[in-house]
Amino acid sequence: NVTSSNYAKVYEAKPSDLERPLDEFPRRHLGPSPKDLEKMLKTVGFEDLNSFVESVVPQNVLKKRALELEAPERGYSEMEMIEHLKELANKNRYEVKNFIGKGYYGTILPPVIMRNVLESPEWYTSYTPYQPEISQGRLESLLNFQTVISDLTGLPVSNASLLDEGTAAAEAMLLSYNFHRAKRPKFVIDSKSHPQTKSVVYTRALPLGIEVSEIDTRNVENSLKVLDDKAVCGCLLQYPATDGSIVAPETLTQFAEVLHQHKSLLSVASDPLALTLLKAPGHLGADIVLGSSQRFGVPLGYGGPHAAFFAVQEHLNRRIPGRIVGVSKDRLGNVALRLALQTREQHIKRDKATSNICTAQALLANVAANYCVYHGPEGLKNIAKRIYGMTSILANQINTSSPHDVVNDTWFDTLTIEINESTTASAVLEKALNEYNINLFAPNEKTVSLSLDETTTLKDLQNLIQLFTCSADLPSEVPQFPATLARTDDILTHEVFHLYHSETAMLRYLHRLQSRDLSLANSMIPLGSCTMKLNSTVEMLPITWPEFANIHPFQPTDQVQGYAQLMSSLENALCSITGFDAVSLQPNSGASGEYCGLRIIRAFLEDTGELHRRVCLIPTSAHGTNPASAAMCGLKVVSFNCLPDGSLDLEDLKKKIDKHAHELAAIMITYPSTYGLYEEGLTRAIEMVHEAGGQVYMDGANMNAQVGLTSPGDLGADVCHLNLHKTFAIPHGGGGPAGAPICLKSHLAPYLPRHPVVDMITYGKDDIKSSKAIDSVSSGPYGNALVLPISYAYIKMMGQQGLPYASAIAMLNANYMRARLQNHYEILFAKNHCAHEFIIDLREFKAQGVEAIDIAKRLQDYGFHAPTLAFPVPHTLMIEPTESENLEELDRFVDAMISIRSEIDSYLQGKPEGQMLKYAPHSLEDLILANDWDTRGYTRQQAAYPLPQLKGSKFWPVVARLDDTYGDMHLMCTCPSVEEIAEN
Amino acid sequence: NVTSSNYAKVYEAKPSDLERPLDEFPRRHLGPSPKDLEKMLKTVGFEDLNSFVESVVPQNVLKKRALELEAPERGYSEMEMIEHLKELANKNRYEVKNFIGKGYYGTILPPVIMRNVLESPEWYTSYTPYQPEISQGRLESLLNFQTVISDLTGLPVSNASLLDEGTAAAEAMLLSYNFHRAKRPKFVIDSKSHPQTKSVVYTRALPLGIEVSEIDTRNVENSLKVLDDKAVCGCLLQYPATDGSIVAPETLTQFAEVLHQHKSLLSVASDPLALTLLKAPGHLGADIVLGSSQRFGVPLGYGGPHAAFFAVQEHLNRRIPGRIVGVSKDRLGNVALRLALQTREQHIKRDKATSNICTAQALLANVAANYCVYHGPEGLKNIAKRIYGMTSILANQINTSSPHDVVNDTWFDTLTIEINESTTASAVLEKALNEYNINLFAPNEKTVSLSLDETTTLKDLQNLIQLFTCSADLPSEVPQFPATLARTDDILTHEVFHLYHSETAMLRYLHRLQSRDLSLANSMIPLGSCTMKLNSTVEMLPITWPEFANIHPFQPTDQVQGYAQLMSSLENALCSITGFDAVSLQPNSGASGEYCGLRIIRAFLEDTGELHRRVCLIPTSAHGTNPASAAMCGLKVVSFNCLPDGSLDLEDLKKKIDKHAHELAAIMITYPSTYGLYEEGLTRAIEMVHEAGGQVYMDGANMNAQVGLTSPGDLGADVCHLNLHKTFAIPHGGGGPAGAPICLKSHLAPYLPRHPVVDMITYGKDDIKSSKAIDSVSSGPYGNALVLPISYAYIKMMGQQGLPYASAIAMLNANYMRARLQNHYEILFAKNHCAHEFIIDLREFKAQGVEAIDIAKRLQDYGFHAPTLAFPVPHTLMIEPTESENLEELDRFVDAMISIRSEIDSYLQGKPEGQMLKYAPHSLEDLILANDWDTRGYTRQQAAYPLPQLKGSKFWPVVARLDDTYGDMHLMCTCPSVEEIAEN
Repeated sequence: NVTSSNYAKVYEAKPSDLERPLDEFPRRHLGPSPKDLEKMLKTVGFEDLNSFVESVVPQNVLKKRALELEAPERGYSEMEMIEHLKELANKNRYEVKNFIGKGYYGTILPPVIMRNVLESPEWYTSYTPYQPEISQGRLESLLNFQTVISDLTGLPVSNASLLDEGTAAAEAMLLSYNFHRAKRPKFVIDSKSHPQTKSVVYTRALPLGIEVSEIDTRNVENSLKVLDDKAVCGCLLQYPATDGSIVAPETLTQFAEVLHQHKSLLSVASDPLALTLLKAPGHLGADIVLGSSQRFGVPLGYGGPHAAFFAVQEHLNRRIPGRIVGVSKDRLGNVALRLALQTREQHIKRDKATSNICTAQALLANVAANYCVYHGPEGLKNIAKRIYGMTSILANQINTSSPHDVVNDTWFDTLTIEINESTTASAVLEKALNEYNINLFAPNEKTVSLSLDETTTLKDLQNLIQLFTCSADLPSEVPQFPATLARTDDILTHEVFHLYHSETAMLRYLHRLQSRDLSLANSMIPLGSCTMKLNSTVEMLPITWPEFANIHPFQPTDQVQGYAQLMSSLENALCSITGFDAVSLQPNSGASGEYCGLRIIRAFLEDTGELHRRVCLIPTSAHGTNPASAAMCGLKVVSFNCLPDGSLDLEDLKKKIDKHAHELAAIMITYPSTYGLYEEGLTRAIEMVHEAGGQVYMDGANMNAQVGLTSPGDLGADVCHLNLHKTFAIPHGGGGPAGAPICLKSHLAPYLPRHPVVDMITYGKDDIKSSKAIDSVSSGPYGNALVLPISYAYIKMMGQQGLPYASAIAMLNANYMRARLQNHYEILFAKNHCAHEFIIDLREFKAQGVEAIDIAKRLQDYGFHAPTLAFPVPHTLMIEPTESENLEELDRFVDAMISIRSEIDSYLQGKPEGQMLKYAPHSLEDLILANDWDTRGYTRQQAAYPLPQLKGSKFWPVVARLDDTYGDMHLMCTCPSVEEIAEN
Repeated sequence: NVTSSNYAKVYEAKPSDLERPLDEFPRRHLGPSPKDLEKMLKTVGFEDLNSFVESVVPQNVLKKRALELEAPERGYSEMEMIEHLKELANKNRYEVKNFIGKGYYGTILPPVIMRNVLESPEWYTSYTPYQPEISQGRLESLLNFQTVISDLTGLPVSNASLLDEGTAAAEAMLLSYNFHRAKRPKFVIDSKSHPQTKSVVYTRALPLGIEVSEIDTRNVENSLKVLDDKAVCGCLLQYPATDGSIVAPETLTQFAEVLHQHKSLLSVASDPLALTLLKAPGHLGADIVLGSSQRFGVPLGYGGPHAAFFAVQEHLNRRIPGRIVGVSKDRLGNVALRLALQTREQHIKRDKATSNICTAQALLANVAANYCVYHGPEGLKNIAKRIYGMTSILANQINTSSPHDVVNDTWFDTLTIEINESTTASAVLEKALNEYNINLFAPNEKTVSLSLDETTTLKDLQNLIQLFTCSADLPSEVPQFPATLARTDDILTHEVFHLYHSETAMLRYLHRLQSRDLSLANSMIPLGSCTMKLNSTVEMLPITWPEFANIHPFQPTDQVQGYAQLMSSLENALCSITGFDAVSLQPNSGASGEYCGLRIIRAFLEDTGELHRRVCLIPTSAHGTNPASAAMCGLKVVSFNCLPDGSLDLEDLKKKIDKHAHELAAIMITYPSTYGLYEEGLTRAIEMVHEAGGQVYMDGANMNAQVGLTSPGDLGADVCHLNLHKTFAIPHGGGGPAGAPICLKSHLAPYLPRHPVVDMITYGKDDIKSSKAIDSVSSGPYGNALVLPISYAYIKMMGQQGLPYASAIAMLNANYMRARLQNHYEILFAKNHCAHEFIIDLREFKAQGVEAIDIAKRLQDYGFHAPTLAFPVPHTLMIEPTESENLEELDRFVDAMISIRSEIDSYLQGKPEGQMLKYAPHSLEDLILANDWDTRGYTRQQAAYPLPQLKGSKFWPVVARLDDTYGDMHLMCTCPSVEEIAEN
């Protein structure tokens, strides 16, 4: 029972209770002290926390049971956790030198970037930069990323990252397919693409009926014949290919020309480090270039998170998936950055969206961008030249002094070696490991492949030569990159890539960017549905330990036992928390989780001969990604209504079920609902769908209000995805990485996704192995594996006793704010109590000229990030404080909202100070330099310090309100030149 | 030869030069690119770097030779360095659980503080907060530290930290001695003080002729008799004592009363964690309370750095050594903090100073203060109660169920155990280590002692019980702290100790403090003589590795081989760099280094029967610490002149030598001089002193202009100290830690300091062991051992090839700035070229009303920290850019100075905008809220954005100019209450 007195016990161990360490975690994670609790309960109208919870959560929903977490009931203390994580870390063999390649390469994360970006809460706790005035730092960094990608690919428009290379390839296919309005069913891919890329492409093609075929680019004539087909919407080549070979530039151009004759699109998957030397595909005719920026300083991390990139020709600029940073200007005319083309996002287009992509990999894109800023073009080229030189030496030695043969006659960093028949690939790999502590890759028993990278040393090269040739002589000359393949244009010419090459200069640049961004290090970010809770230091520590960071996803199982144990235990914990039987950790974003869950349902239906079931019921309150994901799976979306009180309209649901009874595949629901309600009707809705033979998909976005109190499994759902970056403490990273395991009942377990290269180590509770598995949904076997220790540590430190309080306090915090605000604002739906979040209705003001966005912007003047704007209802704000905020911070935010309410009144009454809302936010430049203060009708003090405590400390927006229209009209998504800034 | 072309080679490895990794360090450490170099040389009037250096450094001084650094000539690359440091780390047995105690205890550094303070460049690269307007964050934190100390000790006035407990004890003795104007020669100490404390006290007493005697407080009558003596200036008790016993509070009061009858002073060395439970010594009659705050979250670090504390009764508040933060107000009347009572510092009082203390341990004091903020009073008490409870259980078990006896019948955390005669202390220690992986301490063969601490777990307790009793039963009751010893007053009542107990709240508090402080993460800090160069990430990484951080200074030698190897190699490198034969790493600050060097000279003279040599010659240009240190060593300071051109007046020197020929002990000189000059006369001066039988002490403050070009040893000096925090890249930490090894010629090596507990592992180049060693100058055997990896990594990464460029580029950077500024300001002394720093003479403006401080404050409006103010010449600024600044940053600073020059002209011409200088710095509140902008005669724009690039990015002072007079008149050095703030 989550009583107040139990809370006090969980919150603080007694000195005399020697069983409990004093550095337990719940006290640090949960905001309110037991004393605050009393006060807050009183405001909400309850005596005790338990009676509060039992009154808010319907009886038929509340299903408390003990969680099985493989940790002490009280949770690990912080020091115990670190020790335990170190034990796991020691079971990963990070010291083996990897030459496995295949899309994942050793790289050096410059320590100054590690410490000041990847390990900096200011960077990793910020949100997606939807509020540009307080996000100019990471927007600048993402613009740098786009500029790098644009320069290297030779294409004018790049997005600000995608989830991984496989997903990016699938998105290229979808773009090509949709470019021809789904009328050309064929897509062609390079047979020498990375296996995981192929797998994701096949996964995504299947439900849409796209026929994927492969070509061998070595056979040019044949390839051209395949492409010369009006039914082909596009083709994806890999350059350099997975075997290391590089298709001749003129051949690539030939391919492009054939495709372009039919208005089909050429996509090229490439390697950005190779592109520093290699001719740019964009200049050779490619329409789309994609790939992974991992080797620009981002740790291997057992497969992710890494930032994929995606760039297109100008004419495709409004079709590019994912987020794009654009250059615009602010109210004062200064250059200012923002996310451009928001209208493309799926929360508007829903099932008409051409992609369900939502999250990006902003933190990793920022690492990659800063890596390029720090090295500059010459530094990057030097790294690439060194790799090429060493690879060439090795190739020559193997060809001249060994019994083996290098198969590819062109290369950048990768050699595919045919092993002399006197031995086998396994034997070579074994020798490499045992004698040189080296991992190679064996595509088959006759072939070994290896890729050199930035971390390859002279000693490594000598080891490799010795391994293959039994000598270690080096030639006197280091080969130069061949002119036939080499690009001749300048890259990264913008100033930003030339100014910060000393560590001091880089540190200052990173600090300057950081200081422009509001993050959880500044104040609460009460974004409804986003759950911006604490991302604690202990949880974050293992991320940069080499034992977790420097692991290649294709390292043999016996080398990654630390990960295996961690993931298995995490899967078990997630099963217990969600009430499900099996888990896949592969999906690496919420949208990917949804997609994966629905694909599994589809595979199940196919298996049971019910593939005709194609209807997916989705309430109108759902997040737009739900219908978008369903559409990507080839499902037909049927909406059903919500009642005026926000709850599911069970009658309408019944009607729709009846209408589609024979084609009902699934329902997708969120619980508590996106309206912030625990609905009683949920269980009935689930029953109804089951009775009609449908599957129940629960969107885990609000799982944080269920943990320890109820669960999707207990409520009857068949599958759900979890947003680890919401409920399970993974930081938002300024717009990714995410992590979204799917959990499901045993009848769906056989369909969990496989991986083309790796035999998945753990596979749900009972190590289910299955030939029915669907193809991969992510490039990495375990998705963003490197962030899993965060959720693992969160769960293990909160413990069975602490976790239910995360839910209960999240609810209490929300209800406390709701109670304080209800006399000042209309609260939508939640008439008595809300769940863990609630909606403020601002529609009454709209008619009189005050927009929700005015309030959102004005909150910046109070030092706050706005709550979620216009979701799930237009002209509202949805507030979610999370359990990590304490009473002082809740009050600070409520006080700001109340103060703004009086400003709204001023506006409505036509008082001049009401104009503050329209001018907000007030940047320093506005306050200090503007000439119109005498005529504004309000003072600088009112603008800047509307509440007295702001004088002590305040976060300042660095630009005034963004001009969105200008930005969309003048789309520019690379760093502006000095001339362009002057013009602007 | 440091030619420009060699620089280009060192700066960037060619891709084809496979021997050189691409992540070499010099390129990251050194600011200017080879291209910039050309431009800068041109401005300075040279074609090549080498001809520049040869023209600036006199021929008789330039002594290039290869450095022997036990590293590749090119230096380790960053990744090689990390790997090498990891290898060393693995040789330290940090996993052994220490119960050694004796002033050093296990503690948990809360991860949020580790990541956001100790690992944060914003905290560790800032300077001592002499510019309060841009230092309010760490000033607030240090004020918190003082408040903690004041509360716990029961004394109203605390300083902001001292170097270590031993030094603090010695300072208490000096204060007591000087309180009676050096007329009472006796000082009494508790025989049960920590051995290292005694050692430092004896060291410091000897040259001043203070007679130290010991009392056993168990014999109260006898002790009272010793104290009842008018010749006794003071007494130092330890409470709890080193054996764990706690003198009865009423006895302590008796001691105080006897002493006070004679107006003598009672000092108490105490433990702040014990004081959370124990009656406050200040309330029992102590005049001074001191100790170490290490166990408030600061890693053991093999003995340091830790922050000592020092608190006094009100009547001694102007006699307290070290820095004090005081509450004052700014020009607008807002509460604002600053360093108080600056006039006491030794740069004013020189040889009349009563202490030579200069550096503090600000970074560690901030860690300790934040530890208290995070835990709050209840959290701290819980930790203390847990420790007391466990210690009591263990004591009872040993007394009732083992053949051994606990000697002390009172305790907080420490037990001294008489070992049953059937065994020996060594045998017990061996068993503890081999069977339980535990370190205990053996003061002698019959006694074992142990101290429990915050890290002690239930398992540890069981292990200890089992070790002594062979059973592991636990009692059902945990003993409570005895009422006779317990304090009953509230502690840490100020709000700051009650608001930040969740990690989220703590993170925001730390971020807020950080954001108020200017550090190297913002802009250059061109402090002459302070050498604010890059403190690189790789250098800083090992600091928080447990393998270095969690090592007790008294761990057996075979457990600390990583440290041993590192220190030995560092000593060898320092010998090679300085041209000396032996090194001691023990001194933990520049002043301590000076003291140590002079004490060794004194020991040498005693040994050679020349103790009558007491005169120390010091030029008028010397840093005030030089004469202060000499005075502390009982030397008689004789000043000699400098010529109008700044160089040593060799005639005056000759005269003084002749006059004091028979009593000449030493000369202390700085090279290049504090005036920023390489003087030709140096070698002649050294010869003259040697001819007269004196020793030559070189102050290493400017060693950074010698490395690789010349050396003190090559120039003929006998001893020098090094400021690792200047030349060798240790960060300034906002006012400490420092590190100051002394290096010397072989004839002085036998006198290097020993340690009372530890057989020093390394001892100069040839492992010189000697019975002639002086007593300790620091508590820790190797001073601030934990920071040594920083300098080690710096030296090893710069390598033999890179290090000379640190000196050459430092010179070039200074001369470039000098060249650009010389047409705008009068340059003092350096008529043609300066060394690595130069002085701007502002005396011409003073008569007309513009003070140097006006310019210093105005620089804040340009986003800069002021250069060194009024040292070595009043009304001047001394500028030292260091080698880590790049051309852009040098230009940015020069542009600011030139712009200020035109503002000075405005002032001199009586133009109203000249007033800007007097109003500077302009805080945001001033700019936004002040009502007098219409009458100021200059605009907000001129005030805030005097140069256009400031609009893009600027650091803002959070308060307006401090009111120093008010602060000194109303000394307040603990956190002000809400009422006090309102009153202010």
